[in-house]
Amino acid sequence: MTANAAETEGPAGPFERLLALVADDLALVNALIRERMASEHAPRIPEISAHLIEAGGKRLRPILTLAASRLCGYAGGDHVKLAATVEFIHTATLLHDDVIDESAKRRGRATANILWDNKSSVLVGDYLFARAFQLMVETGSIEVLAILSNASAVIAEGEVLQLTTAHDLSTDQARYDQVIRGKTAALFAAAAEVGGVIAGADVAQVTALRTFGDGLGMAFQLTDDLLDYGGSSTALGKNTGDDFREGKVTLPVILAVSRAAKRGDDEARAFWRRTIARGRQEPGDLEQAMAYLRQSGALAGTQAAAHGHADRALAALADFPAGAMRTALEDIAEFVVARTV
Amino acid sequence: MTANAAETEGPAGPFERLLALVADDLALVNALIRERMASEHAPRIPEISAHLIEAGGKRLRPILTLAASRLCGYAGGDHVKLAATVEFIHTATLLHDDVIDESAKRRGRATANILWDNKSSVLVGDYLFARAFQLMVETGSIEVLAILSNASAVIAEGEVLQLTTAHDLSTDQARYDQVIRGKTAALFAAAAEVGGVIAGADVAQVTALRTFGDGLGMAFQLTDDLLDYGGSSTALGKNTGDDFREGKVTLPVILAVSRAAKRGDDEARAFWRRTIARGRQEPGDLEQAMAYLRQSGALAGTQAAAHGHADRALAALADFPAGAMRTALEDIAEFVVARTV
Repeated sequence: MTANAAETEGPAGPFERLLALVADDLALVNALIRERMASEHAPRIPEISAHLIEAGGKRLRPILTLAASRLCGYAGGDHVKLAATVEFIHTATLLHDDVIDESAKRRGRATANILWDNKSSVLVGDYLFARAFQLMVETGSIEVLAILSNASAVIAEGEVLQLTTAHDLSTDQARYDQVIRGKTAALFAAAAEVGGVIAGADVAQVTALRTFGDGLGMAFQLTDDLLDYGGSSTALGKNTGDDFREGKVTLPVILAVSRAAKRGDDEARAFWRRTIARGRQEPGDLEQAMAYLRQSGALAGTQAAAHGHADRALAALADFPAGAMRTALEDIAEFVVARTV
Repeated sequence: MTANAAETEGPAGPFERLLALVADDLALVNALIRERMASEHAPRIPEISAHLIEAGGKRLRPILTLAASRLCGYAGGDHVKLAATVEFIHTATLLHDDVIDESAKRRGRATANILWDNKSSVLVGDYLFARAFQLMVETGSIEVLAILSNASAVIAEGEVLQLTTAHDLSTDQARYDQVIRGKTAALFAAAAEVGGVIAGADVAQVTALRTFGDGLGMAFQLTDDLLDYGGSSTALGKNTGDDFREGKVTLPVILAVSRAAKRGDDEARAFWRRTIARGRQEPGDLEQAMAYLRQSGALAGTQAAAHGHADRALAALADFPAGAMRTALEDIAEFVVARTV
């Protein structure tokens, strides 16, 4: 599953506390998003982008930008532009991902490419991407443009890499890390980093924010990949087992396959070859896959990896001034791996 | 048809003279393109982009950037980066256009989305777009980033608008102009403009270069749309009548429909409604369409519009120093409307 699906639900708690700290800024971001996704000549653009942007996403990425800039004592207004930039880039990748995954639903709604078509999804994504760069240009910061154009390249690279790793059981953890860094962590890292840059934070702080975002994003995606083999389907808005059905080689599968190879478990190896490599799945296979994942320790191993990244994110905040914002960000790092939806 | 198809062929002449003036720079651009389209982690990216980038396009857009910078006396090296930027943006739009048009061939070859798939075309396009912005960042010029992010927004907007004008006989010339400005002229204008900006040209010269690029691009696309109802199919690498078959409402059709309405020619109006609005075409319809276009003066009207834009491009060069570069650019403005392929 993608990082996005899991953002829609969650108990009142850490996320709401962080949200409360940036609520005023976020209202400005939302207004700016609505203003800039409009198109004078092509009314279809806001129709399609509003579908995604208004669909109840938690705005986790733009909130990171706002929170990072405030953590560094920023008092200007450009963080709002950068937060909108980050959300536009995220939405553009979702639109293009809809073409890609032929996924039947996202956030429990029909995807743009079913309501509209592939053509519109691609072009409206391109439009939002261009709008994102226009917003960055308005801040006048070449450093910000460098960070987010680099992130955009890593995102596209990671998505292409993901295409080539599907059904490929030789995918190892290093390659998987590259995929999810592109898919999720690169934009989390850039979102936090530009918050520090726009605030004029020193290099150490900017680097720490980048590490925080990267750790948070990796932990977030690993937890998503874990939940895809055990989360509650209703709450997720996407069915458990989607990754399995699509033959995605995520860390749980990588660890289970590796364990089966080490133990010489030919039955398990044949199972993964048939279901993932060849994509020939039968009723009951998902349940069997989940049993293998539990028995082999693959789920526990994935959870440990997620916790490792969350700890890294937490540690990166150590040198920032103590206070409500730092505490809220620390709580978020713990929350992303503790959540069950 | 798209602007690109007509670039593949042409008699030795104006284009070759312009090319000769920037040949050394263009060799550097080509080397930079090859270097930057590589991807450390996703080898599929250069496979796909090379297919388009090496496929024999004439590099008209990057040549405009190089020529404009030289016309303004530029002696630095950043024009090479900007020329590569412009070609990356162009290639990204072609890749996304392949998804869009489901066109069966481009430049006489299979399109990327047939050789590979829609997913790869979208993502590799995104990658090249990100690479383009990275190159611009390297020049450190916010002005250049503003120009090309604005152009990117206009391009995407124009493409979306084109989707909504297909089969829509109420499309008027103003709306059509918007479509082709996005489809072709916006990048031509930006390509020429950034050449002047990087050279440190004054506002009047930069504006003149923008006007030159816009006029050239509009003339180029109008001529393409004209040739789609009369060019040589072999030389074009795309069959005459593609726009007709796809129900595209280009200027020839707009003028013919408008003339039929004024004359109360119900037979012609019924013909356009059936073939374009409803897309119900029979053998012999293309020939009938071409006959209507000739008789109604629609082809002549389109040609006159193309010449108007070419004249505007020509006039924009008047205040630049006389010399081989200015003459070569003037000749190109005349060439784009005179060509028959």
